[in-house]
Amino acid sequence: MRVFNFNAGPAALPIEVLEQVASEMLDWNGTGMSIMENSHRAKQVVAMAAETEELVKSLLNLGPEWSVLFCQGGASLQFAMVPLNFAPDGQLADFIDTGLWSTKAYQEAKQCGTQVHLAASSAQDDFTYIPTDYNFSRSPKYVYLTSNNTVRGTQWRNFPAQAPAPLIADLSSDFLSRRVDLSNFVLAFAGAQKNVGPAGLTVVLIKKDFAQTGKKGLPHMLDYRTYLDNGSMYNTPPVFAIYVASLVFKWIKAEGGLEVIEKFNQLKGKTLYDAIDGSSGFYRGTARADSRSLMNVTFRLLSEDLEKKFLEEAKTQGLTGLGGHRSVGGVRASLYNAVTQTAVESLTGFMAEFMKKNG
Amino acid sequence: MRVFNFNAGPAALPIEVLEQVASEMLDWNGTGMSIMENSHRAKQVVAMAAETEELVKSLLNLGPEWSVLFCQGGASLQFAMVPLNFAPDGQLADFIDTGLWSTKAYQEAKQCGTQVHLAASSAQDDFTYIPTDYNFSRSPKYVYLTSNNTVRGTQWRNFPAQAPAPLIADLSSDFLSRRVDLSNFVLAFAGAQKNVGPAGLTVVLIKKDFAQTGKKGLPHMLDYRTYLDNGSMYNTPPVFAIYVASLVFKWIKAEGGLEVIEKFNQLKGKTLYDAIDGSSGFYRGTARADSRSLMNVTFRLLSEDLEKKFLEEAKTQGLTGLGGHRSVGGVRASLYNAVTQTAVESLTGFMAEFMKKNG
Repeated sequence: MRVFNFNAGPAALPIEVLEQVASEMLDWNGTGMSIMENSHRAKQVVAMAAETEELVKSLLNLGPEWSVLFCQGGASLQFAMVPLNFAPDGQLADFIDTGLWSTKAYQEAKQCGTQVHLAASSAQDDFTYIPTDYNFSRSPKYVYLTSNNTVRGTQWRNFPAQAPAPLIADLSSDFLSRRVDLSNFVLAFAGAQKNVGPAGLTVVLIKKDFAQTGKKGLPHMLDYRTYLDNGSMYNTPPVFAIYVASLVFKWIKAEGGLEVIEKFNQLKGKTLYDAIDGSSGFYRGTARADSRSLMNVTFRLLSEDLEKKFLEEAKTQGLTGLGGHRSVGGVRASLYNAVTQTAVESLTGFMAEFMKKNG
Repeated sequence: MRVFNFNAGPAALPIEVLEQVASEMLDWNGTGMSIMENSHRAKQVVAMAAETEELVKSLLNLGPEWSVLFCQGGASLQFAMVPLNFAPDGQLADFIDTGLWSTKAYQEAKQCGTQVHLAASSAQDDFTYIPTDYNFSRSPKYVYLTSNNTVRGTQWRNFPAQAPAPLIADLSSDFLSRRVDLSNFVLAFAGAQKNVGPAGLTVVLIKKDFAQTGKKGLPHMLDYRTYLDNGSMYNTPPVFAIYVASLVFKWIKAEGGLEVIEKFNQLKGKTLYDAIDGSSGFYRGTARADSRSLMNVTFRLLSEDLEKKFLEEAKTQGLTGLGGHRSVGGVRASLYNAVTQTAVESLTGFMAEFMKKNG
């Protein structure tokens, strides 16, 4: 029996996609073999990967100045690749720190020899909000931010409009969940395991001319040009993960694209936040209202014991993956694209019941 | 209809494994979700990954001094990680060059600042054999080799016994195809897409004390200790690929382990090489007899036109993936673990027919 899956990542995938993957496991696309057994140089696989790039560009309305790359190593490898390519050897980059993943990103940049300037941080307030005042340095190479914060349940509404350098973003946990204006950006990346597909694939959006400004002489697998110049096939890419991603992208398109997906995610978020806000303090959202994430809804109960009971009972009702990140505890419901309104209403129904019994 | 798949990689997987993957796609291990939807921190996933490590160690008889790591980025990223960790900043390493992949490995080491010494190379003879005479430097940090050469169809029989430093090997294309004595090694790695599973996973065997000698201060995802200290879960690993690998390892075990697999691969190789050698020169093996690979059997026909005809007709008979590497042309039949004796005999049957018609 399928459960309602509120995992923060890896996370729920559309059941239609999983069914198609299963049905094609022994014979993909008439090749007489699994997608995993096909050569990455086979015409059909090259075409599939190229189509997947085009799907991303079309969903995000990206112009021909953008390329879509398929990398590996997750956001954590991007935390190193970005500074190694674009602010190496003591060059300056500005970071906006909104929680665990942006903290890791700027620490890794330091490790890579970048001079890091924190233009803003909500650390002093437990990362409960997205800063709107920035103290940018005069001429950084780029300004880095994390569009959605899975741990603290916050999400950017409007990206900085007046930054002194192009923006770079980790979009991992709200990629393709809403329309997004990337015109001030030069690079954005997303680990696949939230809204895209299986872990082991990182989708990188990069402006072609910006890629050319990267440091020369890096190890090939750390140089964005290696991916750009070889259609992400300098070596064997994670073909299966790209294939699943292609099915997810087609599913998004069939649902109506990002405009429809965004409305759908707004409804899910409203449903859950309304349940929290209408509980007279029995459930307490942790993020400031203006910074609330539609992807990861974080809240607390009156005590840790009650939270434990909540999570255990939820699980017996088939509501899984609701534990907060191990660094902060509490409850977290991740509402990625593949999480249905039915799943959210099952959760809010359970929350009402639980409050009645324990309130 | 399933074809006979002679791809060099990604390559054939055991049909039993694919069937199990398909059957568990909507509900893995009673979790009510796909393996791709499970958190990598979930107990069952952590247990699965730990079990997979143990399977590798048990198949290879590795003692407790070894660790098994799950990395990403393929052999190409290892080409950089090995020198960055173990021969950085102009330190010396010896390489034995037996073809494309070892050439790439030493070139990447140079790119990473390693002082490279070629202890042997068969480049002058078109990489048709594995060298047995070595001109080692006096005190390199390690000696690097490629155990099997997919492009040229050669394979090591006996690794250097008298090297001046511990050995490091790229085992990608014959990993778990035979018993192997790793006692003189400190590190060996294998891209999964030959004998292990889907592309996007690299299995790394490393001696724990050797890992500790690596350069400090590298980007986290390039430091072997990051994987060692976190059970390969510093960040989200490629869970699906690890899961498929675990099923393949169990399949190898159920077949009887490496001793049985090795005999099975010897029989397949003999069947095909006998067909080549018994063709009175119609088919000509490209590798020297003492260096022939049991994994990738490379041969030529009398002309490129005839090779083209051979490949086209083979495909119509359901014999696929037989084209030689794009850098050398000709014919290549890859006989990885999951390629059956039936497949090989279908190929040799076709070869006899083709010779009769075109000889």
